[in-house]
Amino acid sequence: MSDVYFIERDPYAPIRHCYPVSKVLYEAKSEYQDILVFESPKFGKVLVLDGVAQFDEKFEFIYHEFMAHVPLCAHPNPETVLIIGGGDGGVLREVLKHPEVKRAVLVDIDKEVIETSKKFFPTLAVAFEDERTEILCEDGFAYMQRHKNEFDVIIVDSTDPVGIASSLTTEQFFKYVYEALKDDGIYVGQTESIYYHLEIVRKIQHELKKVFPVVDLYTAVIPGYAGYWWTISVGSKKYQVREPLRELKAPTKLYSADMHKHAFLPQSFYKKLLSGEYNP
Amino acid sequence: MSDVYFIERDPYAPIRHCYPVSKVLYEAKSEYQDILVFESPKFGKVLVLDGVAQFDEKFEFIYHEFMAHVPLCAHPNPETVLIIGGGDGGVLREVLKHPEVKRAVLVDIDKEVIETSKKFFPTLAVAFEDERTEILCEDGFAYMQRHKNEFDVIIVDSTDPVGIASSLTTEQFFKYVYEALKDDGIYVGQTESIYYHLEIVRKIQHELKKVFPVVDLYTAVIPGYAGYWWTISVGSKKYQVREPLRELKAPTKLYSADMHKHAFLPQSFYKKLLSGEYNP
Repeated sequence: MSDVYFIERDPYAPIRHCYPVSKVLYEAKSEYQDILVFESPKFGKVLVLDGVAQFDEKFEFIYHEFMAHVPLCAHPNPETVLIIGGGDGGVLREVLKHPEVKRAVLVDIDKEVIETSKKFFPTLAVAFEDERTEILCEDGFAYMQRHKNEFDVIIVDSTDPVGIASSLTTEQFFKYVYEALKDDGIYVGQTESIYYHLEIVRKIQHELKKVFPVVDLYTAVIPGYAGYWWTISVGSKKYQVREPLRELKAPTKLYSADMHKHAFLPQSFYKKLLSGEYNP
Repeated sequence: MSDVYFIERDPYAPIRHCYPVSKVLYEAKSEYQDILVFESPKFGKVLVLDGVAQFDEKFEFIYHEFMAHVPLCAHPNPETVLIIGGGDGGVLREVLKHPEVKRAVLVDIDKEVIETSKKFFPTLAVAFEDERTEILCEDGFAYMQRHKNEFDVIIVDSTDPVGIASSLTTEQFFKYVYEALKDDGIYVGQTESIYYHLEIVRKIQHELKKVFPVVDLYTAVIPGYAGYWWTISVGSKKYQVREPLRELKAPTKLYSADMHKHAFLPQSFYKKLLSGEYNP
């Protein structure tokens, strides 16, 4: 094993991950963030933004499959999908596995992330050239304000809700999301971990409940994210989301109808989590 | 945050955890392993054996609750319980929350672990003085060979199944476990993670199936164990274990009847995991 390590600097985790580095492939400073790509023996290539690992090639499928397939399979006919962030293309790749999707709009503020993915992560960037894809490099908050009654599913695949992504978990933003969704639309967004970020999870759920009639939370265990037991928050205008309405026929590694249901915690624990009764 | 770090050296993980260290409390070499106790700002005190973190005060309840309450609540009347390893006392503490338990035998090869826990982890060592407790410092494999038809539940809370604990996941050991259990007894043991140790998980399940009529696997998400999505393997002589048969009335932080059921993966995924169809 290499003696060179990447040491994560994640201000929201009480532990640091060290990845063995076999090769540093790319280092740059975009207008918005520091970008680093390195190769790690067991993980393949890893993308780092502002010192925090975003994904590795080996395990990226977990996050991307669950971000995309839970809301899409909970919707009866997701024709139009908006992705905020997600410039790596991983969520987009999964979204376009659904033949129902006719249009997928990806809005990432940072063009350099998209270019980096095209260059170093072709297995994630595979759907950029799909004819259903539209890519825009602009601020997701501003984009959301201008679009009304347009999307069946909105997926916010942002960096941690601090820094440039901090505006994407406010009540105001969720109001714009609500308006940008059609009458039966579904929103999901990554909302940090059960272990290290419980206050953030609770706050975001609280804000969502001010706006959406159906609010829920599901989880995926993500080895690359310190906190591991990761939450994805849901705001839905009409549908319950715990059971898939449709079957996904394209191949996935971990997602399935059974795993969709399993991703939701028992209601009893979900209530304890939000009420503060679970507070280790 | 401190600038001093403990860097884990876990030969079976492709990543290293770095814990900020506010104080090193104890360093020693027992007859069997290196022992280290340090204090970390967000985790409290951490116990390290041979360079691998065993638990921290903040999150130890997850592993200990799920190791103890799943087999005990799946058994209608667990009067006699054997714990192999677990010299810290955490599993023992949880076992003795069941008033049905009349006798709990703890066999740890390393007396120094028990003494370290008494000194530094009083919230784990709390059940050492319980009148139902018997503590023996000897080799768990040798102990198992000599006892027949004696225990309702056997819990193997070992270090990773390499080094001194490698004998505790062999077919021969499981045969002794089978014989040491009563006719309706249940075995559980920690068997590494879904992410980084899938081959080990499969091998242990395979060995168990040579011996037990009912074999299953449940999981807990453990932030302190690199691999995170941790597996606990079950061998049962009679009972299915996915549904609790009894209610635990004592307080727990995470375990509940609902979380017991949720800890078991859907059968469809469990099959894929063992068959190799899930193999990222």
